[in-house]
Amino acid sequence: MVRSPTWSLAAHGGAGVIEPGGLRPAQEEAYRAAMARAAEAGAAVLRGGGRAIEAVELAVKALEDEPLFNAGRGAVFTAEGKAELDAAIMDGRTLAAGAVAGVTRTRNPIALARAVMEGSEHVFLVGEGAEAFARTQQLDQVEPAYFFTERRWKALERALASLALPIPHRPAGALVDEAAALAHDEGKHGTVGVVARDVHGDLAAGTSTGGTTGKRWGRVGDSPLIGAGTYASNRSCAVSATGAGEFFIRLGAAKEICALVEHKGLPLQAALDQVVQRELPAIGGDGGVIAVAPDGAIGWSFNTPGMYRARIGAGAPLVVGLYKDDP
Amino acid sequence: MVRSPTWSLAAHGGAGVIEPGGLRPAQEEAYRAAMARAAEAGAAVLRGGGRAIEAVELAVKALEDEPLFNAGRGAVFTAEGKAELDAAIMDGRTLAAGAVAGVTRTRNPIALARAVMEGSEHVFLVGEGAEAFARTQQLDQVEPAYFFTERRWKALERALASLALPIPHRPAGALVDEAAALAHDEGKHGTVGVVARDVHGDLAAGTSTGGTTGKRWGRVGDSPLIGAGTYASNRSCAVSATGAGEFFIRLGAAKEICALVEHKGLPLQAALDQVVQRELPAIGGDGGVIAVAPDGAIGWSFNTPGMYRARIGAGAPLVVGLYKDDP
Repeated sequence: MVRSPTWSLAAHGGAGVIEPGGLRPAQEEAYRAAMARAAEAGAAVLRGGGRAIEAVELAVKALEDEPLFNAGRGAVFTAEGKAELDAAIMDGRTLAAGAVAGVTRTRNPIALARAVMEGSEHVFLVGEGAEAFARTQQLDQVEPAYFFTERRWKALERALASLALPIPHRPAGALVDEAAALAHDEGKHGTVGVVARDVHGDLAAGTSTGGTTGKRWGRVGDSPLIGAGTYASNRSCAVSATGAGEFFIRLGAAKEICALVEHKGLPLQAALDQVVQRELPAIGGDGGVIAVAPDGAIGWSFNTPGMYRARIGAGAPLVVGLYKDDP
Repeated sequence: MVRSPTWSLAAHGGAGVIEPGGLRPAQEEAYRAAMARAAEAGAAVLRGGGRAIEAVELAVKALEDEPLFNAGRGAVFTAEGKAELDAAIMDGRTLAAGAVAGVTRTRNPIALARAVMEGSEHVFLVGEGAEAFARTQQLDQVEPAYFFTERRWKALERALASLALPIPHRPAGALVDEAAALAHDEGKHGTVGVVARDVHGDLAAGTSTGGTTGKRWGRVGDSPLIGAGTYASNRSCAVSATGAGEFFIRLGAAKEICALVEHKGLPLQAALDQVVQRELPAIGGDGGVIAVAPDGAIGWSFNTPGMYRARIGAGAPLVVGLYKDDP
């Protein structure tokens, strides 16, 4: 393959009811700024000749650390009042992948997913076991209260009340967070994700989420499932999804997009639209995806009113969008 | 679609080091009989005009109840001396799917996967949460000792000794099981799975496993992951896989097979061989798959010395195979 100085990156912060007039100007500004910071964090790696997998991890970490998004800090609560976090990362060059589900004490689940990929012979670790593995790695561990934000707790109380389920005790040590006061409620879902293409021609994808508000029974969505919410192959594309996870799992959505590119020869954007605008609504699902092609072309598609998103590349300025009609 | 009285079903009981001379005659007979019983259990449903999803659940249950296979009764032990069971089921007509991972008290994990599919709005439940959901359904719950077999315990002791890890206490109430004495050690892996096509033209797939001996850190393999070890779509095929799970996850193997059929137009057998004989070894993986096409054609492919397998159909007699050169 001929190497080129091309690099590019796209990020999302979730899809949902994100409409003009639905966000106050200060909220809109906070989201645009947070998306820009994350995209720039990844772009700095790629601009310097760094690897796509590195840029993806760094940019997802930036989004996880923002209390605005449902991932890492800012995650929604389960019915039991806990933040149970899921993440996945995949290297398109080797098809190496790592994923975790149901972790409660690792500050950056995407870093744990990468540690699974590089520091174990496994791809997917869940629950207490994943936490035990995390403790063998040099990763920031935090108290569960670190993930507490007031608006997510209020959302949990509303969700449980509507289901006539008991409200759990408020976590000990939880503080009211000022930055999270600007957060917007875009609906049940919420996920962050990043895809990148580096100057070496390699692709990578990563996704991280807190799941759905009031989730029960150890529910795991598409984000940490390789092929559902996350996939990357240098032969086709790298994809990160957000939305009603169960529908993305049933379609094998991320893998389906890559297969439409590789096996059917569809251009990336056509493959994205085929899955998001046709296959997904055909089974009742909503959400969005971002993707990057081996030539560095960025694509995205969503069937919700909006999706927090950003893209940037070599010679391509940063573009941040929230609403359907944004560029 | 023109309906036809065609129905067919295939089952596997795991792939691995299964070679002529490696099994005693009594072992060989026990495996052939167990595969035949499971295939016949599913065939009885299909012969009577029943649904593929029903046949798959019933046949997988039969395999889970056999102590010879690494699924349900007869499952391998984790490093902590527990049986942690994973299963998935998928309906090719609707793309409905259900899956569970890390359950320890549900006698038939495949039945729990189906209950998730039909009795919840979710696809994938893991760990304690999945157990809690199981208790809300009318499903057989058992003591962990139910899953105990002497040979799996011995395998755990060997595995942990080789890793210099501590041997956990033997589970309370564990009995020596006579039927399991005929079991053969085919290597690290082991999974059961069934695919079916019913007279209504619908496809289904199901997979169940105890994972790998001495597994740690909440490791989950490909079996319960929709698109990795299990997938079904009436537009392409139904697939169940067995083998080194991490490699099947990285390929999105079951979905990849379906995509090669649907998007590249490959015949089913060519798609199976593409993934199992080329893509899988290219990244260092081994194992096998079974599949059924919308026209009822059965295919299988494995790159291990053997795979316990059976097929049967309308007008097609039962065929059971263990070794590479079996029909």
